[in-house]
Amino acid sequence: MLNEMLDNVRKVHPLVHCITNYVTVNDCANILIACGGSPIMADDTGEVEEITSICGGLNINIGTLNQCTIPSMFLAGKRSNQLGHPVILDPVGAGASKLRTETSQKLLDEVRFIAIRGNISEIKTLAQGEGTTKGVDADIADVVTDQNLDGVVEFAKAFSKKTGAVVTITGAIDIVADEKKAYIIRNGNSMMADITGSGCMLTAMIAAYLVANPGKALEATAAAVCAMGLCGELAFDRIERTGGGNSTFRNYLIDGIYGLDGETLMRGARYEIK
Amino acid sequence: MLNEMLDNVRKVHPLVHCITNYVTVNDCANILIACGGSPIMADDTGEVEEITSICGGLNINIGTLNQCTIPSMFLAGKRSNQLGHPVILDPVGAGASKLRTETSQKLLDEVRFIAIRGNISEIKTLAQGEGTTKGVDADIADVVTDQNLDGVVEFAKAFSKKTGAVVTITGAIDIVADEKKAYIIRNGNSMMADITGSGCMLTAMIAAYLVANPGKALEATAAAVCAMGLCGELAFDRIERTGGGNSTFRNYLIDGIYGLDGETLMRGARYEIK
Amino acid sequence: MLNEMLDNVRKVHPLVHCITNYVTVNDCANILIACGGSPIMADDTGEVEEITSICGGLNINIGTLNQCTIPSMFLAGKRSNQLGHPVILDPVGAGASKLRTETSQKLLDEVRFIAIRGNISEIKTLAQGEGTTKGVDADIADVVTDQNLDGVVEFAKAFSKKTGAVVTITGAIDIVADEKKAYIIRNGNSMMADITGSGCMLTAMIAAYLVANPGKALEATAAAVCAMGLCGELAFDRIERTGGGNSTFRNYLIDGIYGLDGETLMRGARYEIK
Repeated sequence: MLNEMLDNVRKVHPLVHCITNYVTVNDCANILIACGGSPIMADDTGEVEEITSICGGLNINIGTLNQCTIPSMFLAGKRSNQLGHPVILDPVGAGASKLRTETSQKLLDEVRFIAIRGNISEIKTLAQGEGTTKGVDADIADVVTDQNLDGVVEFAKAFSKKTGAVVTITGAIDIVADEKKAYIIRNGNSMMADITGSGCMLTAMIAAYLVANPGKALEATAAAVCAMGLCGELAFDRIERTGGGNSTFRNYLIDGIYGLDGETLMRGARYEIK
Repeated sequence: MLNEMLDNVRKVHPLVHCITNYVTVNDCANILIACGGSPIMADDTGEVEEITSICGGLNINIGTLNQCTIPSMFLAGKRSNQLGHPVILDPVGAGASKLRTETSQKLLDEVRFIAIRGNISEIKTLAQGEGTTKGVDADIADVVTDQNLDGVVEFAKAFSKKTGAVVTITGAIDIVADEKKAYIIRNGNSMMADITGSGCMLTAMIAAYLVANPGKALEATAAAVCAMGLCGELAFDRIERTGGGNSTFRNYLIDGIYGLDGETLMRGARYEIK
Repeated sequence: MLNEMLDNVRKVHPLVHCITNYVTVNDCANILIACGGSPIMADDTGEVEEITSICGGLNINIGTLNQCTIPSMFLAGKRSNQLGHPVILDPVGAGASKLRTETSQKLLDEVRFIAIRGNISEIKTLAQGEGTTKGVDADIADVVTDQNLDGVVEFAKAFSKKTGAVVTITGAIDIVADEKKAYIIRNGNSMMADITGSGCMLTAMIAAYLVANPGKALEATAAAVCAMGLCGELAFDRIERTGGGNSTFRNYLIDGIYGLDGETLMRGARYEIK
């Protein structure tokens, strides 16, 4: 199943419109190409509706949101909704400022998202309308462990029911849930937290998977999350052989997605369904 | 001849003002340094005329154009024209939105460009005033092949005559034309399409070559295009030895430009003149 | 002493708010993580005061300043001052345009900086209120050598006395001075000038060192400068073994900071105190 999701991205070559932050934008573009998609970044109100129309899907990432790009997020989101394109939200830093929390909330109110991805603090902020996010990393009090896993899974399912979106919570353990079913994914490596953009890249890649696998949002998202985690493991293995730090790890991670095939994904994915 | 063009860049160390997109800007800065130039990025209306005055040339790239940076493109372009500095245009995504198409057209009307570089779809859009560009890649219907090469060369020469600019159309086969003469360049590797920024980096590098080789716009541009294609080949060879994907390829491509000397360029360049 | 400074960064894991340029922002984020800190980039007036409040320190870099981000620099700077957070200034290109020179001056007037880092041309511009900076590199007439070193050290001390900030002037020889004491640091490698962002990354890293070492601004800054220079040397050594150009060097430099421990820093640091 996961392999079909991956193969479809390489077949369909989905064009993904990204309204995203300027910190990790280059990595997002390169990982979209690596997985088989094609990126276009555009964030001016004067063109976002038109640009999103020629694309297959839309990725909204609020990492460096500002007064110019916020209106573009709404315009592009609504236009994508009209066209039936999948739209995904990455609420970077929701909870760290009112602007981020309120923009995320308003986006949830006015745009229909097929998927949302964040760390546990960001997703809690969206669900509760307020948060304690410390910067762009998850609050330590929020970390998902085997002890609180069942509760977090129920929370993710409930938030999916409320929003209609597949909800992805990433961390040491990743959860991908719709209202009925959740993938608990245990791929990944701790060095993924040692680069900027692991989360942003994953969200961009999920967008490509969603476009290429219509009607299978849960499975497509789970496949993308497994793929990213597995490539984190492969990148770490390669680091152990060649040496290197977080900058080399970033390159190896993107390289891994570039070289990943469906068979390797199937063999390497470690998940259970709850 | 090509080697002199390259050597002049390393001698003159040209300072290039870039008004460019935030996706590939870091790669553009690093490749400018790699080839022997020096980058300065500035896009606020409050300083672009002054910044461009202290530079040798100007690179305008509309990849993430917006209401703030578009006026800066015109201000800097006109000031550069007054000072006799070479100005180059990269019409990223022209044809993909009215904003891109119209901004490119208006730039062509109001600023004198010594060179223009794009894929075939972007250049057709500029020439025809409308286009079918799909995102930032060339439309498949537009691809340049040996079958339609002569027609595309005539088109490039005619567009050069109309604009007064050296016209560069890049793809599997690259064409660099003024109104009378065209270089058909067959360097390059298909992995160059697997990273973001191959085109943007080339345009930035052409700017440095133009500044360092006054009065030789056609030859300077051809040298830069050969250099980039050749380094794409060298990067691919290195990938075959070390392994790696598109992120490593990007590093090797810039590394290649950093290490390239005139002799290697002369030996490796594959082109004919029509 | 230097090793404690480094170890404290890894212990405290300081969150640094960066208002910085879009050219080197990704490198700044990755080097902040590499040294043990955590970055958050935010530059909209609607959130910078709140964001800076949850951080330990603020890094203001004017590399691609514009009408939207300039007010954010003042808002965040003043709020950080109220909270007693360390604030550092990187006056990129001060002297290259009135906008840069005047913004830097006004920042010095209205915000209290604990540290300032630039090349000699930029720092001279700040001290004199005008400059001859050529682009973002130091003017050749300004280069610090053993011949003029004593004069530059006196200048740095005097400027530190005037501003109350630790003044760092980087180049082939680095100077870190408060009003009474200066570190003359001779670590580094010339390839550091062959990538974009060596300076920006260092400033971001100094911010993390300042947050993690309260009351020791001079020593913390000197430690960060030694660390960056030493990792430039290590990166060059690694390049000599593996081959590669400036793009690989950038990766190795960040990798080096990621792997650096206090012992290695102590052994490798080369400085005298004047």
